[in-house]
Parts: sequence; C-alpha cells; structure tokens
Amino acid sequence: MRVYDIILKKREGYSLTKDEIYYFVNEYTKGNIPDYQAAALLMAIFFQKMNKEETAYLTEAMMYSGDVLDLSKIEGIKVDKHSTGGVGDTTTLVVAPLVASCNVPVAKMSGRGLGHTGGTIDKLESIQGFHVELSNEQFINNVNQFKIAVIGQSANLAPADKKLYALRDVTATVDNLSLIASSIMSKKLAAGSNAIVLDVKVGSGAFMKDLDSGIELAKEMVDIGHHMHRETIAILTSMEQPLGFAIGNSLEVEEAIQTLKNRGPEDLKELSITLASYMVFLAKEAPSIAEARTMVINHLESGKALSKFKEFVQAQGGDPAVVEDTNLLPKAAYTREVIALEDGYIQSIQTDNIGIAALILGAGRENKNSPIDLSAGIVMNKKIGDTVHKGDSIATLYTNKAEVLEQAGSIIRKAIHLSEGPVQKPRLIKAIVSKDHVQIM
Amino acid sequence: MRVYDIILKKREGYSLTKDEIYYFVNEYTKGNIPDYQAAALLMAIFFQKMNKEETAYLTEAMMYSGDVLDLSKIEGIKVDKHSTGGVGDTTTLVVAPLVASCNVPVAKMSGRGLGHTGGTIDKLESIQGFHVELSNEQFINNVNQFKIAVIGQSANLAPADKKLYALRDVTATVDNLSLIASSIMSKKLAAGSNAIVLDVKVGSGAFMKDLDSGIELAKEMVDIGHHMHRETIAILTSMEQPLGFAIGNSLEVEEAIQTLKNRGPEDLKELSITLASYMVFLAKEAPSIAEARTMVINHLESGKALSKFKEFVQAQGGDPAVVEDTNLLPKAAYTREVIALEDGYIQSIQTDNIGIAALILGAGRENKNSPIDLSAGIVMNKKIGDTVHKGDSIATLYTNKAEVLEQAGSIIRKAIHLSEGPVQKPRLIKAIVSKDHVQIM
Repeated sequence: MRVYDIILKKREGYSLTKDEIYYFVNEYTKGNIPDYQAAALLMAIFFQKMNKEETAYLTEAMMYSGDVLDLSKIEGIKVDKHSTGGVGDTTTLVVAPLVASCNVPVAKMSGRGLGHTGGTIDKLESIQGFHVELSNEQFINNVNQFKIAVIGQSANLAPADKKLYALRDVTATVDNLSLIASSIMSKKLAAGSNAIVLDVKVGSGAFMKDLDSGIELAKEMVDIGHHMHRETIAILTSMEQPLGFAIGNSLEVEEAIQTLKNRGPEDLKELSITLASYMVFLAKEAPSIAEARTMVINHLESGKALSKFKEFVQAQGGDPAVVEDTNLLPKAAYTREVIALEDGYIQSIQTDNIGIAALILGAGRENKNSPIDLSAGIVMNKKIGDTVHKGDSIATLYTNKAEVLEQAGSIIRKAIHLSEGPVQKPRLIKAIVSKDHVQIM
Repeated sequence: MRVYDIILKKREGYSLTKDEIYYFVNEYTKGNIPDYQAAALLMAIFFQKMNKEETAYLTEAMMYSGDVLDLSKIEGIKVDKHSTGGVGDTTTLVVAPLVASCNVPVAKMSGRGLGHTGGTIDKLESIQGFHVELSNEQFINNVNQFKIAVIGQSANLAPADKKLYALRDVTATVDNLSLIASSIMSKKLAAGSNAIVLDVKVGSGAFMKDLDSGIELAKEMVDIGHHMHRETIAILTSMEQPLGFAIGNSLEVEEAIQTLKNRGPEDLKELSITLASYMVFLAKEAPSIAEARTMVINHLESGKALSKFKEFVQAQGGDPAVVEDTNLLPKAAYTREVIALEDGYIQSIQTDNIGIAALILGAGRENKNSPIDLSAGIVMNKKIGDTVHKGDSIATLYTNKAEVLEQAGSIIRKAIHLSEGPVQKPRLIKAIVSKDHVQIM
C-alpha cells in the first residue's frame, strides 16, 4: 500500500477502505508517512468528504492508536459526557456528582484546557488539595466506592488524533465534519465508557455557529458511537451567550456549588438536569427520560448531589469545607465593573469575544505552557433579554493583572449589543439527536 | 501575511493576489514555509483551480525565483521551442538547425532527461566530443556566429518550480492545468527567448490523453506567454504512437540526420517543418506562415539545414564526420526483432508502454543518478495503419543488457493492437492555439 495512491483515490472522490484508513493512521502516527502527504490527504478529505463508514474507521483507527481504558472492573454502565466547548461551561462540575448520586458510575478522564478558561481539572484544582494523580487502581476503586472519580488524560490517548489535529490546525483542514467528529469520538471512545451523552454547542460562542451544522456534527458523532456499540445521544444547546454567569476557574467552581445547592443560574441548572437525565437513562438507572429527570431533580433539591460532590472532593484530597465556604477558593486581587453606557435590552452577545476577554484576564492558557490564573475571570450580570439601565453593571471582571482590566472591559462592552425594545430569551435546548432520530425543540 | 490565511482563502474558492502568490513562492523556496502547508495549498488549488491572473503570477514568481537568462546580446528575435514530452520525439535535433539555417537565433538551454530516453543534451552527447559546457559568453558568441548553440540547464533555473514539482509529485497534485502550465512556462521564460513555439503532445504517449485537455493546457501556456509579453503559439500534435521510428539517444540522432538529409520518417519531417515554420514566422524572418514554410522546406531540401547541423556539432566539439557516417555513433551489443504473431493492421499503440520498454532496454534514467545507455533503444518498423504479416518485424530492440530483451519485447507486443480491417493513419497536427484563437485541424 502506498499513501500516494490513497491521496489520489480520495482526491478523485472514491471511498477509502478500512485497510487504507488504518494504514494511513498507523503509519502517520509512527512517522512513516510525512506531514506533507498527510496534509494533502486531509485537504482532499476536506473537499471530497468521508462517508459514514470511512468516518467510523478513521475514528476506530485513531482510538486504537494509543491506550484504550479498560473500565470493566467498574460495576454498572459507565456513561461519559462530552461538551464540544463553549464559554463558561460549568456543567461537568454539576452533572458528574448529580448522576453519581443517582448510582451512575462516572469514571472521568479530563484534560487541562487550552481555551478561554482551564479544563475540568484546572477548575477542580481551584479547591485546595484536590489532585487527579490517581493510579488506575485507585481510580477504579474510587468509582466503585463513590461512583465518581476524575483523572488526568493519559499522554498516550489517541496519539494519532493529537498528531493529526496539530497538522489540521496549521493547514486549514480543521472544519470538516468527519474530521471533527472522529477527533472528538476517538478520544471519548478510548476513555472506555459504555455510553456517551454529547453536549453539542451552537451559537456565537461555539465552533458550530448554527443549528443545522450542529445537527450534522451531532449525527456524525452519534453514528460513530453506535458503530462502536456505544449508546450515544447528542443534545444541541445554545451557546449564544455564556452558560450561567461565571467564566473562569474558581468562579465556575463557586457557581457549580451554588447550582448543586439549587441556587444556581437557571440555564446552567436546566442544562445540568437535562444532561444528567439522559446519562441516568442511558445507564439504565431509570426506565424513561421522564423518570430519570424526576430522579435527577429530586437529588438536586434534596442535597444528595451536593453531598456527592463533597464526598468526591474529599476522596481526591480536596478540602470539603469549600462547599460551605466558597471564600476558601482563590480570589483575584483586582475586580472591576463593566458599566452600561445607555438604557436598553440585551439583544445579543458575541460570546467568543467574552471568552477572549476571560483569556486576557488570565483565566485560560494562550499555549500549552502558559500559566493559568485560577482566580481570574468574568461574572456576567446581564444575559440576553435582560433590561439594562445606564450605570448598571453588565459584568464583573476578576484578575491579578490590573493593567488588562481596561482592555478586557472594552472587549466585553463591544461584544454586547443592546436593543431599544424587549428581546426574547433564547431557547437553551435546541434539539436532541439519537440514532436515526432528530428532535428539534 | 500568513500562509495559513492563503490556504484558507484558496480553499474557500477566492482568488489569490499577486502579493500572496509571490509571498508563498518566495518563502517556500527559502524554506520558510513547510512542505505540509505547501501541500495543503496545492491540493486546495487542485480543487478550486487558479484563474488566468493567478496562473500568470505563479509563473512569474517561479521564473524570478532563480536565474533569468539575459540573451539581449544576441542579435535578432530569439525563438524557443518546447515539447510537453512524448516517446521518440527527435524534433529538436531537426528543428534547431533548420530554423538556424533560416537566420533565426536558437539559444537553447536543455536538460538531461528523466524519462524513457535522455534529453536533448544526452542525445547530442552520442556524438563523440560534443559537449555543452560553454561559458555564457561562448554561448552568446556561438549563437551570434552560427545562429545556434545548446547549453546545459542552469542549476538555479526556476528553483521554486523544482521544489514545488518534487512536492506535487508525491502529493497527487501534478495534474492541474495551472500548475502544469506554470511549471513549464516558468522555466521557458527564465531561459530568456523572445518568442515560444510549444509542441503540446496528446495521445497515449503523452501526459494529456485527449485533444480537449491538450487544448486547455495550450491555452493556459499561450496566455502566460502573452502575459509576459512573449509571442507564444502552441501546436497540438499526435502522440498516439512514437514520433518517427527511433526511440533512444544515438538512434534518434541517426534519425535526425536522416531527416535533415530529407530521408527521414514522414511524421517527424512534417512536424519539424511545421514547428520550424512557426518559429521562423515568430522570428519575423518570413512575413507569413506560408512563406516561412516554403523557406523551411527549401532549406531542408537544399541541404542548408544539414550543413547548419554539421557546423553546430563542430562548434561544440563534436565530430562532424558523424553526419556522413552514422556508424560512428555508439552501437548496442545486442539487437532483437519483435516478430508479429498474426496478420492484420496496426490499430493502436500504447505509446507510454513503448517508452517503458525503451527505459528497460537502458535508453533512459530511472532516477537522477542512473546511468544511461546512449546506444540502447527501439526502432519501430510498423506504425498505425500499416499492414502486418505474421513473421514481420514490428520493432527492433537495441541494448547492452541481453537479459532484458525478452521483457522489453513482451511489453512491446502487448502494447500493439492489431485489427483485421484497414485502419486510417492518425492526423499528426491536431490544432493550433494562438492568442484568442484555436484552430482545429
């Protein structure tokens, strides 16, 4: 087999075979196929697309290019959740203890973030003492005992995806549905769970800007999941504005705790309940989505989910006192209000720019080795549809670098558009994609 | 400027600006743009094409990436000829002295071949003593004195094209008209002549398999020539069978000498007269193509072209006695006839496979450093439309490696298809493409 022939075949619009896809993925990962041939193939794939089978084989090949977690020693049906990424997405911190409290084993492998804020692990590390350096055995024991544990992502998880993604990133071949879907799913599948609930974000703060392309991506991922015999459901959700109010690591932990106390923002609460319900249903802990939802709400309102969070924090070395006193979280030295300059209603928010402001304040990493400021971030005080009076605070900024406050404030003010007349609040849950079915809300 | 943005722009179907194209070509040649980004851009160009302006700028940028010959010290209008390559194409050896005898300065820069046979220089080196190591001054003096000289190709001729071609070759991005046309023309333009006659081959032995695609390529090249203010005309000619009878270095020199003696194969003679007529016309040595043709035929029949060849050989150190006694050329140790196994008419010839047989016999280089056997090759004894009787020799093989005779003979026999009924001989000249005009014959 020669990669030249594979490039030519795809260029001419033919489907690649399983053997050809595995050959490419394996030899590229080993360094036997040079970047320039891989780049040519990726661009040919961009133009000629991949069909369902090709996408599934690509995912498989990337998944098997490195470690595949064996969670068989964990009792019960393991359900994982994945979000395609947005701004201020605190759901994992709420959903994980919520479903664990419903007896669903949550064996979560998480990464550190390279975005507007840190990843789940960075956020959890805002809690003093919390650590993710567990052995595989400890990890499995913790899940069996507490139904929940989080470890850092294995360095050898889907290395083919890591290498291909880095190449796509510099060759303008990122935005192809098959390539996006296989990249996400190869890592999720290698993480070993039995079922997967996907939170596919659409809107100004998401990679997918509109619902149609979000649904297409969701379908690709659900198909891949089923190809690999994993029950997979995708929830399409709004990222037209930051989720909840908080954007930033310790700020989001605080917000998650509030939400687990049933005092959180409406949208974060609703999304957490929805995702948790599907996870509980897929784990067969409830016979229907409706019953799962009832159980989830019950566990949120009764404080069971909050207790589970406390237990989880303690099990991984964190100080559980943070649940009662969020002042124990890191605090930024400087805060500033972003003040409205006129009256009106919040019409739209360029959410990606809000994310950039958070990054500038120090909440995220600009590159792999950048430091991250766990206390930095933004709390939004207004959301789409809210009334604004001149002088109101639209957002509060948190940082340890006083010199960036002006720039971040200016970006946020420009990212928020007011209207004179009232504005309807956007719908949060936009569609549900399951095998062979798309339900638009 | 960032190459990423250039890739994305082309991927999305926009036209690149002159600045963007120059930036890419120059930075890639300098090694500041990695192969993988160039490969992605080439594949995007394959799918989105380039328009006339982009193709012209690409050619310009590649032409100026290295040395550009200054032929201004040569008197008269310098006309160059270029063939897109085929099997047994001996025309340069006939046309160059023919037009030089008509007072047209031929300042030819030629390469060594990497194909079925050697290039023009390899062929000329079959003549004892002939060499192309002339200083630029000698080269110009020779052209001024004799109207003809040949030197080897500068190592620094269009280095951008050299580097890009090598990348295209391994990334399945060779066959795009803009890329093919700009590659050929960048080198031709850097070689410094004032006008160019292109011989665009079409058929089973050529890169372009059919007339339509040949015409498209010709149009691209003619447009590029005019963009650079060089009068350019393309002649579309048949490569459905080898040109003339001989394929191989010394065999073609012998055939060229026969043709200059007006005793050569009809097709080689006709093509040489046609190409020479256009060159004489573009050099303004005749007021019309018809008058140019009369002059060219006259010089061929009168022996003026043959005398010019002799003068040229002598001027570059070659033994002119070869003109009277072609037995002075290198001779192969082994010959074998390929015998017809049945009666019929030659219907078609897979000409590219005949070329491969010549390569196997030793007439060409398999890679840049392979040795070349100047005496090896094939003489075709039958051409399309000829009657064949069982036992007739279809072709004669020449080699110094007896062990390859069997394989080469078998390839040739398989490449020749007989019909029971009579077959018309193919038309040699298929179309003429000039600025804004296509004349189909």
